[in-house]
Amino acid sequence: MSKFEEILKELGTLDLRGMYGQDFLLTWDKSMQELGGVFAVADALRNLRERNISTRIFDSGLGVSLFRDNSTRTRFSFASACNLLGLEVQDLDEGKSQIAHGETVRETANMISFMADVIGIRDDMYIGRGHAYMQEVSDAVARGKADGVLEQRPTLVNLQCDIDHPTQCMADALHLVHHFGGVDKLRGKRIAMTWAYSPSYGKPLSVPQGVVGLMTRFGMDVVLAHPEGYEIMPEVAELARRNAEQSGGRFSVVNDMDAAFEGADIVYPKSWAPFAAMEERTGFYGAGDSAGIAALEQELLAQNARHTDWECTEQRMARTNGGRGLYLHCLPADISGVSCNQGEVAASVFDRYRTPLYREASFKPYVIAAMIFLAQVENPVEMLKSLEREGKSRKKR
Amino acid sequence: MSKFEEILKELGTLDLRGMYGQDFLLTWDKSMQELGGVFAVADALRNLRERNISTRIFDSGLGVSLFRDNSTRTRFSFASACNLLGLEVQDLDEGKSQIAHGETVRETANMISFMADVIGIRDDMYIGRGHAYMQEVSDAVARGKADGVLEQRPTLVNLQCDIDHPTQCMADALHLVHHFGGVDKLRGKRIAMTWAYSPSYGKPLSVPQGVVGLMTRFGMDVVLAHPEGYEIMPEVAELARRNAEQSGGRFSVVNDMDAAFEGADIVYPKSWAPFAAMEERTGFYGAGDSAGIAALEQELLAQNARHTDWECTEQRMARTNGGRGLYLHCLPADISGVSCNQGEVAASVFDRYRTPLYREASFKPYVIAAMIFLAQVENPVEMLKSLEREGKSRKKR
Amino acid sequence: MSKFEEILKELGTLDLRGMYGQDFLLTWDKSMQELGGVFAVADALRNLRERNISTRIFDSGLGVSLFRDNSTRTRFSFASACNLLGLEVQDLDEGKSQIAHGETVRETANMISFMADVIGIRDDMYIGRGHAYMQEVSDAVARGKADGVLEQRPTLVNLQCDIDHPTQCMADALHLVHHFGGVDKLRGKRIAMTWAYSPSYGKPLSVPQGVVGLMTRFGMDVVLAHPEGYEIMPEVAELARRNAEQSGGRFSVVNDMDAAFEGADIVYPKSWAPFAAMEERTGFYGAGDSAGIAALEQELLAQNARHTDWECTEQRMARTNGGRGLYLHCLPADISGVSCNQGEVAASVFDRYRTPLYREASFKPYVIAAMIFLAQVENPVEMLKSLEREGKSRKKR
Repeated sequence: MSKFEEILKELGTLDLRGMYGQDFLLTWDKSMQELGGVFAVADALRNLRERNISTRIFDSGLGVSLFRDNSTRTRFSFASACNLLGLEVQDLDEGKSQIAHGETVRETANMISFMADVIGIRDDMYIGRGHAYMQEVSDAVARGKADGVLEQRPTLVNLQCDIDHPTQCMADALHLVHHFGGVDKLRGKRIAMTWAYSPSYGKPLSVPQGVVGLMTRFGMDVVLAHPEGYEIMPEVAELARRNAEQSGGRFSVVNDMDAAFEGADIVYPKSWAPFAAMEERTGFYGAGDSAGIAALEQELLAQNARHTDWECTEQRMARTNGGRGLYLHCLPADISGVSCNQGEVAASVFDRYRTPLYREASFKPYVIAAMIFLAQVENPVEMLKSLEREGKSRKKR
Repeated sequence: MSKFEEILKELGTLDLRGMYGQDFLLTWDKSMQELGGVFAVADALRNLRERNISTRIFDSGLGVSLFRDNSTRTRFSFASACNLLGLEVQDLDEGKSQIAHGETVRETANMISFMADVIGIRDDMYIGRGHAYMQEVSDAVARGKADGVLEQRPTLVNLQCDIDHPTQCMADALHLVHHFGGVDKLRGKRIAMTWAYSPSYGKPLSVPQGVVGLMTRFGMDVVLAHPEGYEIMPEVAELARRNAEQSGGRFSVVNDMDAAFEGADIVYPKSWAPFAAMEERTGFYGAGDSAGIAALEQELLAQNARHTDWECTEQRMARTNGGRGLYLHCLPADISGVSCNQGEVAASVFDRYRTPLYREASFKPYVIAAMIFLAQVENPVEMLKSLEREGKSRKKR
Repeated sequence: MSKFEEILKELGTLDLRGMYGQDFLLTWDKSMQELGGVFAVADALRNLRERNISTRIFDSGLGVSLFRDNSTRTRFSFASACNLLGLEVQDLDEGKSQIAHGETVRETANMISFMADVIGIRDDMYIGRGHAYMQEVSDAVARGKADGVLEQRPTLVNLQCDIDHPTQCMADALHLVHHFGGVDKLRGKRIAMTWAYSPSYGKPLSVPQGVVGLMTRFGMDVVLAHPEGYEIMPEVAELARRNAEQSGGRFSVVNDMDAAFEGADIVYPKSWAPFAAMEERTGFYGAGDSAGIAALEQELLAQNARHTDWECTEQRMARTNGGRGLYLHCLPADISGVSCNQGEVAASVFDRYRTPLYREASFKPYVIAAMIFLAQVENPVEMLKSLEREGKSRKKR
C-alpha cells in the first residue's frame, strides 16, 4: 500500500461531515477526528504535490486575504495554499488602527465576497476583537448567501486572532506528528510552552494560547511557564485544563523556566505580552488614548526587562529529555546576538534547530489548504482519489 | 427552454458587432442593443457560474488595474471579473497627484500591456482629466498593436472617470431590470437621482451623471434633484435631455428633494460636489495651488452644511410610489447616526434596503466581465454555448 | 519549414544542459550557446503566443518578485513572464533601506519558497550588495531543497543587481538580433554605450556594465564613452576586454561622446553614477550616515551638471553609420524639454525611435520567460513541440 493509500485509508475512518461548509476559527471548536482530518488531508496534498500531481479543485475563484497587521510569512502561506487549490489571492489591507464594527463589517464582507471561495483573516492586535470580528464576517457572508447576494459562502480561515492561531499550531502539531511518528505517539510527551524575553513590545498571546489549547487534546503533558504577570486569558487556561482531563493528559502552569524544561520532549520558548495589559491596551485604543498607550508600552518594556534571564540557553536545553528536546518556534525568533542583543533563544540553540524549524514552517501552507479543502469538498477521500486518478501534472515535464 | 437558452435567444437578436475589439468608456457611446448585450452576457455568465460551469475564456493573460484613487469595492469587482474570465490581475497604482500627459501615458500604456488583455482604469478626481486620460491610453495601445509592439490590443474598461461611471450604472440598471422584470418594464418608471447631504468633500459627479445619462435611454421618467449650485456638467444634462426625447422618456431638473421623491418608483439619493467647483479645483491642482485647494474645500463643506435637510428620510420615502420606492446607492453610503452624525440617508431606510443594495452591488463583477467578454469574443452566443457544452466545473465536486 | 520549426531546429543544436536547475544571475556566467538558447526560446514562446497557443507549463505555482526598489516596468515584465508560463505572482517588498544579511536572508528565502518555482530579485541600489544578496538567496533555497524543507528549488532570475541587468541587456540584444537579422550579423557592428547627462542622481551602473559585458560576446565593436570620473566597475571593464579578445570583437573606452558616435551602428546613451561614488554611498548607508549621503548627492549632481553637453542630439546622430544608427534605451529616458529641461536625449531623436524602443522593451517578458523555461524544463525542444502539438488556445475563440 502506497503512502497515499495509507493516508486515504486513515482519512476514510474519520467523521468529517461537520467540517463541510464551515469555517476554521478555533481548534477547540473541532473534534479530534476533524483535527486528524486536517493532518491527513495536509499530508495527502503534500504527497500529491511531491509526485507532481495537480491539486487544483478550483478552475477560478478568489482567496481573499484580510490582514489587519503586517505579515510576510502568513501572507505567503495563505497565498501558497490558495494557489495550490487553484484560487487567486486578492489582498484587502485595512488600516491597523481602524476597528470596523457591525454593519460596516457586514457590508465589506459582502462586497469582497462575490467571487470569494475563501477569506483568510489575521486580526490579532486587540484582545476581545479579533475572534469577534471573524464571527461577524462569518455571519455576514452566511446571510449574504442566504439572501441571494452571494452565490457561494466563502470559507473563513483564522490566520491569527486574539485568542488562537490555529494554522500555526496545527502546523506545529503536524510537525510533531511527523517527528514522533504519529498522533498517538504524542500521548504522554512533555511540551514546555514557555515565555521568553524579548526586547520588543506587545507580542500576541495567540501562539501560547493556541498551543496549550491544542496540545492538551493529544494527551500530552503540557507545561505553561511564564513570569508572574504574564498570565494568558483565563478562559483558555481553563479550557486547557478541561482538555487535559478529557484526553488523559496534563496541564500545569509554573513560574519557572528551568522547571518547565526539565525532562521536556518539546520546548516552545516565545515572548508574549500579559493578557491583562493587552486588555487594558484595547481600552486605550477604543478611547483613542495615545498617551495611555505610550505609557503602557514603556511600562511593559520595563516589566519585560526584569526577565531577561528567561532565555532558551544551552544550559536549559540540557535539562530537556536526554538533552535532546525538540525546539519549536513560529518564527521569526529574537535570537540573542543575532537579531537583538538579548532575546528569546541562544544563537547556538537556534542554529542547531534551523532545519527542523524551517520544516515546521513548511507544513503551514498544507495545513491551510487542508482546512479550505475540508470546508469546500463534501467527500474528501473521493476527491483526493480523483485528483490522483486524473493525474494532471502540476508542472509539465 | 432553460433560463440560459432564453438569455442566449435574446442575445442572438442583438447586433453586437460594434463592441468587438472596442473599449467601454461611456454608456452613451453604445447602442441600446449593445447595452442589452451587456445585460444578457452578464446574466449568462452568472447563470453558468451558478451552475458551477467555468466561464474562463483565457488560459493565461493579465488584467491590469490602473487606479488613480483608492477603491476597495471597484478593485474587487474588477479582480472578480478578470478572474471569472481567466485573467490574473496586476495592479498599477499611480500617485493621486501625478497627472501624466501625452507621451508618458503612451509609454506607460505600452509597457504594461505586453500580456494585458484588459486594462481597467479609475480616474475620477479631476474634471476634464479622467475620460481624456482613458482616450490617451486607448489610442496608445491601439498604436502599439498597429506598430507590432503589442500582440493584442487590451480592452479598456472605464471603472469611473470624471464624466461617467458605466460599470456602476450598468450594474444599477441590471438590478432594476431584475427587480422590475425586464428592460421594457423600465419604460415610464420614475427615478429620482437626487443630491443628498454628506459631511465629506468632493465626491465625484460620475454617478449622478452616469445615472441620468443611462436611465434616460430606457424611456424612464428621470428627475435630477439638487440644491442650487450643485449642477452637473452641462453637456451631460443636455445629453440626458436628448436621450429622453429619443427614448420617449422624460428628463427634468428640480431643486426640491420632496418633489423629486413624489411618486418615484426608484430613488438614488447621493452626495456629489458641484461641477463648477470641481473644475476650479482641477485648475488649482494644475497650478499646484494647495492654498487654493484648501480654501475651496472649506467653502464647499460650508456650502454642503447649508443643505443638511437633503436626507433620504422615512418621511420622504413615504412620498414614493405606494411608499415603496426602491432605494439605490453605489455604496458606501453616509448613514445618519451610523457612519456619520448626519448624512445621506436615515438608518432605518438604509437598513430596510440592505439586502437589495448588496444584490445591486453583486451585479457589478458580472457587468464588468460582460463588457470584457463582448470586446474580446467575436461571437458571444457561440462562445457561451460552447462554455456550457464543454461544462468544465468551476469547482470540482 | 515554419518559423517555429526553424527556431526549434536551431535550438536543437545548442547544449543547454548547464541551464537546467540553475539560476540566471549574470550573462557572463552563461555560455554563448546558452545565450543563444535564451534568444531561441524567447522567440519560440512569442511565436506560440502569436498563434494563440498556450505556453503554460505550470498548472499552479508561485513566481515571487522580491523588489528592493520601485519598478513598474520590470515588475510588469516579470509578472507577464510568470503568467505566460502559468505561475501566479506574489510580491515581497522589502524596504529600500533594509539590508538583510546572512541567516535572515536564509530564513526569508525559505519562508517564501514553499510553493515558489521562481524568484525574481531586483536589488540594484548598493554597490557590492545586490549580486551578493542574490547568491545568498540562491544558496539558501538550494539548502532548503537539500534539507527537505522545499519540495522544489525555485529558479532565481536577476531582475537587476549592482553589477548586471541581464533581462534588460538580453532583451536589448534580442532586439538587435531581430533588427540586424541574426546573432551572427552582430559581428563587427559598432555599438556606443555612452554616458549621457541627467538631472537626477545615482542611476545604477547595471545597464552600461551589462551592455559592455554582453555585447562584447558577439564580436561587436563596443565603445564605452563617459566623462572622466564616470568609470564603471574595473572588474567589468576587464571582463569586457577579455570577452572582446575571445570573440574577435573590440572593447574601447573613450571620454568623448562624439568619437563614440562616429560610425556607430547602435547608440545607447544613458546616465549613470560613477562607480567609486556609489561604493562610497554604500559605506555611508552601512554606517547610517545620512549627512554623508546628502552631501554626496549634492556633489554628484554638481558633477553631473558639468556635463550637460553629453546629450544624444541630432548632430551626434548624424555622425552614426549613414546617419541611421539605431538608438537604444532601457526606458524611461530623460528627454530634453519633455521629461526634464535638459536630459539624455533630444526630443526629436527619441520621437523618431519611439516604436523601435517599445519593440525593444517588448522582448523583455519573453526573455525572462525563456530564462525560467530553460531552468525548469529538462528538454526544451521536446516541451516546445509538445506545447504546439497540444495546441491549447491561450484565448478561446
